[in-house]
Amino acid sequence: MASVVRLGAQFPSRRLRTSARNMLDGIVTAIVHGPVNAEVGLLVNDCIVIDALVTNSCVTSLDLHPGGRAVALINASFITLLADTPGLRLSARNLIGGTVVDVTDSPVESEVVLDIGGGRELAAIVTSHSRRELNLVPGAHTLACFKASHIILAAEY
Amino acid sequence: MASVVRLGAQFPSRRLRTSARNMLDGIVTAIVHGPVNAEVGLLVNDCIVIDALVTNSCVTSLDLHPGGRAVALINASFITLLADTPGLRLSARNLIGGTVVDVTDSPVESEVVLDIGGGRELAAIVTSHSRRELNLVPGAHTLACFKASHIILAAEY
Amino acid sequence: MASVVRLGAQFPSRRLRTSARNMLDGIVTAIVHGPVNAEVGLLVNDCIVIDALVTNSCVTSLDLHPGGRAVALINASFITLLADTPGLRLSARNLIGGTVVDVTDSPVESEVVLDIGGGRELAAIVTSHSRRELNLVPGAHTLACFKASHIILAAEY
Repeated sequence: MASVVRLGAQFPSRRLRTSARNMLDGIVTAIVHGPVNAEVGLLVNDCIVIDALVTNSCVTSLDLHPGGRAVALINASFITLLADTPGLRLSARNLIGGTVVDVTDSPVESEVVLDIGGGRELAAIVTSHSRRELNLVPGAHTLACFKASHIILAAEY
Repeated sequence: MASVVRLGAQFPSRRLRTSARNMLDGIVTAIVHGPVNAEVGLLVNDCIVIDALVTNSCVTSLDLHPGGRAVALINASFITLLADTPGLRLSARNLIGGTVVDVTDSPVESEVVLDIGGGRELAAIVTSHSRRELNLVPGAHTLACFKASHIILAAEY
Repeated sequence: MASVVRLGAQFPSRRLRTSARNMLDGIVTAIVHGPVNAEVGLLVNDCIVIDALVTNSCVTSLDLHPGGRAVALINASFITLLADTPGLRLSARNLIGGTVVDVTDSPVESEVVLDIGGGRELAAIVTSHSRRELNLVPGAHTLACFKASHIILAAEY
């Protein structure tokens, strides 16, 4: 838990307020540059590294560097939940396990909030149809997946 | 219909359960590699090939190859519905015609389910405002479009 | 306001009807080609240029060129709203200020419509939780951000 406390100590999004249901601040662990885009790893709790794909020019303008800080904005509707499936392989770079802690239903869509450990939560908007099919109720274990290219990174001066 | 039955014969997502409202399994028809990404064609019924854009490394890790199988996960909120428009050209790679078979409304968003042929359905979440504007009611014909880069591919060992 | 009238004079989406809550037609200002993708600037009112990322082959097939016309389709659920934050830097290419003119709530998601100037509106779907947190009510000022890669461009013959 120590590193979580450390992560929170200079919580960069204290001033940042967005409609992105998920704002995960963390420490940049690695940056791999391609010809146009870069893959940025962001450690958001003791063990979870989120992979974000941004342009190389954005790495410069946000001054992203290993050891530096950034905030990942992840739209709740960009997250797909999966039942644990043996042998499953996915093209999505991010796959995070969690326990359902809260569910809000509407006729069409439902919000499912997961505890992903280290005091961190992840909220997903899924169709109510899928919420029922997967029996996503408090206490259920599920996997959350999302694409590296769907993440917006934010930094503050 | 024969090929649809064949497609279903070894339905790879029998074990795969996700909140992605659309899980279309199919046969990989072609893979075109670029410097970083690859375009993967997936035949999901007699005549519809879905184009997915994934990283080259993902083609390897999912062991994607022509003739092999994969499942396309398409978030219902990633789908845009269009009235048939003469002369329309789009930057989205996937454009599929269908007939509305079911509609669920809420004050903000509506779920519209399309029959796209070959026993396949595609569900889209659109704003209720747009649902009314486009008069999307059961029996209406519409076009569904979505970006190749929004698709997540899954495979099983 | 003169240029807005001019923009509307040959409004290309008169025939185009889609479920994309946001259809902003405009004039292509610049196209910057990369190895695979191209960045297309689209002037949608007196001062707002929207950045869209599409494939190079799409630039050809849609016949996009500076001075030509195109329509940007932006899914309302792809838009993240932000409170104005001093020193904020974002990886998302598009950041547009606006004033809330309309709000529709449901238990899970809310639609927030912004006036972005020049007679143009932008609708965002955000979680109702975020809508309340950010106090997005008519008259409030907010920033809308969205990724260049989330935009679909349309053109007509």
